[in-house]
Amino acid sequence: MSVLPHHDGSATHVSNPAPALGETVTVFARVPETAGVSQVHLRTTPDGEPHFVAAVPDRRRGGEVWWRAEVPVHNPVTSYRFWLTGPGGDRWLNQYGVVGHDVPDATDFRLVADAPPPQWHRDAVVYQIFPDRFARSAAADQHPPPEWAVPCDWDTPVVGLGPETPYQFYGGDLGGVEQRLDHLAQLGINTVYLTPVFPARSNHRYDAAGFDQIDPLLGGDAALASLAAAVHARGWRILGDLTTNHCGDAHPWFAAAVSEVAAAERELFYLDPAGDYESWRGVKSLPKFNWGSAELRRRFFDGPDAVLARWLRPPYRLDGWRIDVANMTGRLRADDYASEVAAAARAAVAAARPDALLVAEHAHDATGDLDRGGWHGTMNYAGFLRPVWSWLRGPTLDLADFLGVPGEVPRRDGGATLTTMRTFAAAMSWRSLAASWNLLGSHDTARIRTVVGDPARQEVAAGLLFTLPGTPMVFAGDEWGLTGVNGEDSRTPMPWHRPERQDRRTFDTYRALIALRHAEPALRHGGLRWLHADPDALVFVRETPAEAVLVLARRAAGTPVRLAGFDAGAAAVNHYGGGPDLRGDAEGVLTLPADGPTLQVWRLG
Amino acid sequence: MSVLPHHDGSATHVSNPAPALGETVTVFARVPETAGVSQVHLRTTPDGEPHFVAAVPDRRRGGEVWWRAEVPVHNPVTSYRFWLTGPGGDRWLNQYGVVGHDVPDATDFRLVADAPPPQWHRDAVVYQIFPDRFARSAAADQHPPPEWAVPCDWDTPVVGLGPETPYQFYGGDLGGVEQRLDHLAQLGINTVYLTPVFPARSNHRYDAAGFDQIDPLLGGDAALASLAAAVHARGWRILGDLTTNHCGDAHPWFAAAVSEVAAAERELFYLDPAGDYESWRGVKSLPKFNWGSAELRRRFFDGPDAVLARWLRPPYRLDGWRIDVANMTGRLRADDYASEVAAAARAAVAAARPDALLVAEHAHDATGDLDRGGWHGTMNYAGFLRPVWSWLRGPTLDLADFLGVPGEVPRRDGGATLTTMRTFAAAMSWRSLAASWNLLGSHDTARIRTVVGDPARQEVAAGLLFTLPGTPMVFAGDEWGLTGVNGEDSRTPMPWHRPERQDRRTFDTYRALIALRHAEPALRHGGLRWLHADPDALVFVRETPAEAVLVLARRAAGTPVRLAGFDAGAAAVNHYGGGPDLRGDAEGVLTLPADGPTLQVWRLG
Repeated sequence: MSVLPHHDGSATHVSNPAPALGETVTVFARVPETAGVSQVHLRTTPDGEPHFVAAVPDRRRGGEVWWRAEVPVHNPVTSYRFWLTGPGGDRWLNQYGVVGHDVPDATDFRLVADAPPPQWHRDAVVYQIFPDRFARSAAADQHPPPEWAVPCDWDTPVVGLGPETPYQFYGGDLGGVEQRLDHLAQLGINTVYLTPVFPARSNHRYDAAGFDQIDPLLGGDAALASLAAAVHARGWRILGDLTTNHCGDAHPWFAAAVSEVAAAERELFYLDPAGDYESWRGVKSLPKFNWGSAELRRRFFDGPDAVLARWLRPPYRLDGWRIDVANMTGRLRADDYASEVAAAARAAVAAARPDALLVAEHAHDATGDLDRGGWHGTMNYAGFLRPVWSWLRGPTLDLADFLGVPGEVPRRDGGATLTTMRTFAAAMSWRSLAASWNLLGSHDTARIRTVVGDPARQEVAAGLLFTLPGTPMVFAGDEWGLTGVNGEDSRTPMPWHRPERQDRRTFDTYRALIALRHAEPALRHGGLRWLHADPDALVFVRETPAEAVLVLARRAAGTPVRLAGFDAGAAAVNHYGGGPDLRGDAEGVLTLPADGPTLQVWRLG
Repeated sequence: MSVLPHHDGSATHVSNPAPALGETVTVFARVPETAGVSQVHLRTTPDGEPHFVAAVPDRRRGGEVWWRAEVPVHNPVTSYRFWLTGPGGDRWLNQYGVVGHDVPDATDFRLVADAPPPQWHRDAVVYQIFPDRFARSAAADQHPPPEWAVPCDWDTPVVGLGPETPYQFYGGDLGGVEQRLDHLAQLGINTVYLTPVFPARSNHRYDAAGFDQIDPLLGGDAALASLAAAVHARGWRILGDLTTNHCGDAHPWFAAAVSEVAAAERELFYLDPAGDYESWRGVKSLPKFNWGSAELRRRFFDGPDAVLARWLRPPYRLDGWRIDVANMTGRLRADDYASEVAAAARAAVAAARPDALLVAEHAHDATGDLDRGGWHGTMNYAGFLRPVWSWLRGPTLDLADFLGVPGEVPRRDGGATLTTMRTFAAAMSWRSLAASWNLLGSHDTARIRTVVGDPARQEVAAGLLFTLPGTPMVFAGDEWGLTGVNGEDSRTPMPWHRPERQDRRTFDTYRALIALRHAEPALRHGGLRWLHADPDALVFVRETPAEAVLVLARRAAGTPVRLAGFDAGAAAVNHYGGGPDLRGDAEGVLTLPADGPTLQVWRLG
C-alpha cells in the first residue's frame, strides 16, 4: 500500500466535526502529487439528490495537495464523498478509502448535526469492573450470602460452564472497588465502568430485580455514592450498566404484571392471555420489555426520577450508561422501536446532564443503530475485537466458538484484518467510531491472554487498543494477563493477594501504553491513515494538525516494511517499543524494523 | 474466477421467495466439492441478535453439495448469510458473494415478508414513451399549440440545451401512441410506460398543473382510456408517471396556497410568511410538497378518488406508477418522510388493485428506500446503467458529464463493472433487485447508441439488458439506434417516416433478444451466478430449477474464457449470437469464443 488520497472526520480534515444544522463545514482531501489526480470534486446528497462542487487546491505540503471544499450541513446526517479525476483514473474517496468503482452512499463520510458525544470521553481510558469479582471490603462480610447463591472463597476456581455458573458468589462489593482505586490510578485509568449494581438473583446482575436501589449486597446506595464521590474526587468518571431489553423475573414490575391482568405493568411486557411471555432468547427468568408501551417509556425516560436520569444526579452522578443488549432492545418480530428507544434515551440523559454518555452493547453490527439520533457509540466487538483476535490468535487456541460464531477463531492475515476494520468503520460516522469502545475482551468473552497465548502478542493487541481511534476499555484483570476461555470463565476474582498470578510485564505494558495515549493528543483526537498491511504487519499514522504518530504492529518477524512518500532525511523518533529512531533515505523511504511480535510507536518530525 | 459457493434469492435456492411473517423458508447454499468446505452454518439475526444453525448436506449434484437450512421469517425483513468452514478457510457467503473477512449485515441475503411486487412484472418488457415525441394522431391537429409552446415540425431538430428546450412542442399525443402499438408488438414489448400525461406548461409535463384530468393536448381522459383499453386488449400493461416531490406552479393547489394564507392548500407546500417557498433544486416553477401535511397525504392516498388510486380504476386501469424524483420526495433539511410516503403509496395502490406496481426513480442509490415497506423497485441507474456505460463506452465519447457526475463517463474494466453491479445488488433484497428496472438510457440520459458508439457494442449492452435480473426498460427509439448527448437531446421524435434513420440491424437485435427473454424462463425468473470477469468479458449463468442459460458478454476480442467445473462432455447449445455449440473437454472445461464485441447465449444441458 502506498500513500493514497486521504480524508477522515478528524479535526485535521474537518473544520467543525460537531456542526449545527445549517452550518457550513470546510473539509480537506489530501492527494499525493503522484496520484494522477488533476481535479477533485465534492459530492453531497442534500435531500437525497447528488450535488457536486469543484474543490480547490488550498495548499501543497509534504508532496500532497490539500483540496478544500465547503459542505453545507443541510440534513441531520450530511453525507459526502470526493470524486477524483485525472490521468490516474477516476476514483471515489469515501469513508472506506479510495474506490475504483461506484458504491452506495452508506460508506460516505458523515457529518452528524445533533448533540455530539461528550468531550471527556475522547480522553477516557475505561476500566470494566464486574463487582462480584473485583474486590471485597470488610462490609461485605456483614451480609450473609443470598439464598440463590453458591458462596465461594476468593480463591475458588470460577466454573465457566455449569449449573452453578450464574450463582457462584464471591461477594465483591462497591466498597472493595473504592479501596482499590489506586490500582487503577497506577495503570492510568480515568473512567470506571461497573457492570450492573441493581439487586438481582445472579452474580452478574443482568436480571435486575429493580432500578430504584443499589444492591445491598454491594453496599447499597451509600456505597455507590461513596465510590462515585471517590472516583470524581480523582477527576475521573464512572459509568453504570443498564439493561433495556429485559429485566429479571424478580422485578416488581414483572411480578405486578403477571399477578393482575388489569395491572398498569401488564403493558410493559409481552404477556399473552395464557400467561406466557417473551423473554431474552427464551430464558424465562429474563422477561422482555415491550417498548410499544408509553408507560415503560415514562418509567425509563420521563423526568429526573425516571430510571435513566436519577442515577446521573447527586449523590451518585454517574457519567452515563453502557446499555446492555441494545441490539435487541425494542425489537420483536414486526415491532422495531430500537431507534425510538435510543433517541428517547439520548434525550433523557441529555436532560439530566449534557455531558452524559450512552454506549450501546452490540456484538455483531451496530452500524444501523448509530448516528441518526442513535447511541453515542458501541462496544466495537465487530470492528475491533474480532479482527484483532483473528489476526493475533495463538497457534493452538481452542475455544468453543468465536463469540457465538461456530468453530474456532478464524485465522486472518493483516490484509483481511484491515479490511474488516475499514468495512465497519466505513459504515458509521467518524464521531461514532471515535465514541465507541475498543476492547480486547469483556465479561462476555474469553480473555485476550488466552486468545493470543503469550505476553508478547498481548502487547501487540494492547498496542492496537491504545493507539487506534475509539475509547479503549480494559476488562479488569487483563492488565495482569489473567486467562479465561469464555465470558463466564473470564470473570476471574482479582488475585490481589496472589502476586504470582499478576504478570508484572503485562501490567507495565498496559501502564506504559496508557501513559503514551495520555501523552499524545494524536492518539486520542487524531485522524487515522493506514499506510501498510501485509500478513504479519499493520502500519498506520494518527495525526492532529500539530503532530503525527507512526504505529507499527507486527504479529511476527518478517520482511521490513518500507514506507515511501516521506522527505529525504525525515526523522521519526521512537516513543514506544524500544525500536530505533528512523530517518528517510535519499528516496524518502522509511524502513521499519523487521522483528516481531512487536508494537512500535514513533513521533514524526 | 472459478465456480464459487453460491446462493441467491431465486426459487432455485429459496423455497418461498414471498413468505409471510412467521413462515419458515428452506434455503440452499451450493458449495463446490473442491472449495474446501466441511461445514456450512446459517446465520440469522432474529430481533437483532445473531443465531447460528448447522446446515445439512441435502444432495450432491454436478460436483456441488447443496447445503439445506431453514430460515424462520421472524422479522418483516429477515436477514441471513452462510458461514463456511473447513480446510479452504473460514468465509462468509452473503449477498455480495464469498467474503474472507467480517462484514456488516447490510449485505446479508434478505427475505421480505410484506406483499411482494406483482408477478406480471417479472415477465414484463417495458417501453418508455415520452408522449410529445412519440407519434401524432390526426386529433393532434385539432389543438392549437398552447401559449407556452415553441411549435415544431416532427423533423425539427431537438435543442438539447437552450431556453426553448422545455418548450419545443412536437404535439405527439396518446392517439398517436395507440396507432403505433404494432411497432411495440413487433419488438416484443408487453408493458407501456408513459412519462407524465397530466396538464402542464412544458413538453415533459413534470410540472403537473393538476392530477384530475389528462392533458387535452394529448387527447384528454378519453384518449388515455382508449389507449389503455387497446394496451389491455393485447394482454399488456400500462404504467403512468407521477411526481410526488413537487408539482408545477400552475397547479391549482399551489395557486390556492399562495393566494390565501388561510387556504387549506397552504400546508401542502413549504411556504414562508414572506411568500417564498421551497422548490425542486431551486427551480421556482416546481414548488416542493410538504409531506408532513396530513391533507397532502389525504389527497394523494386516501380512497379510490385520491390521486394514486383513481387512475388505476376503470376506464383507465393503469397498472401502476413510476414515481418521479422518489429520492427527494418527503426529504427537506430535518424532515424525512420518505419511508412514510413510500409505505402510504404502497398501501394506496394495493387498496386500489393488488397487482399494481410502484417503481421509484432514484438515480444514484435507492438501496435505503427499498424493502422495509418501501417501493417495489427502482430504476436501476446505479447498479446497471452506470456500470454498463462505463464498461461499454466508446473510445471517443464526449458527454458533458456522467449523469451529473463531473467529467467524462469513466472507463471501467469488467472487474470494476462486476464489482459495481454486485455492490448495489448486495444492498437490496433479491426481490427488489428483480422488481427494479434495468435500463440503458431514458429521457434523462444520453442515448445508449451515443454512449457505445456503434451497433455491435449496443448489442452487447442490450444483451445485458435482456439477460440480467431485473425488468428491462427500453427508451423508445433505442431500438432504432437513435442518438442523443443528454436527456433533453435524446427526446427525439420517432422517425416513423424516415426509414433511413431506423437502424434495422439494431431493431432486429432488440427483437431477437426480447424474444429470447420471453422464451427462456431462466432469463425472467432465474437466479444469477457470475462465473467470470476480465477487462473485456463478463460471463454468468441464469438458472431455474429446470434450466440454465450461459451468457457471454464481450466488449472486444481477447483471450478465450475457459470455464472449469463442468462435466466432461457437457453440452451447451447456442441460442443467441451465432456462436458454436460447446462441449466440456476431458477436464470439464468449456472454452468460450474469443471474438468480440459479441453477446452469446447458450442453453446448458
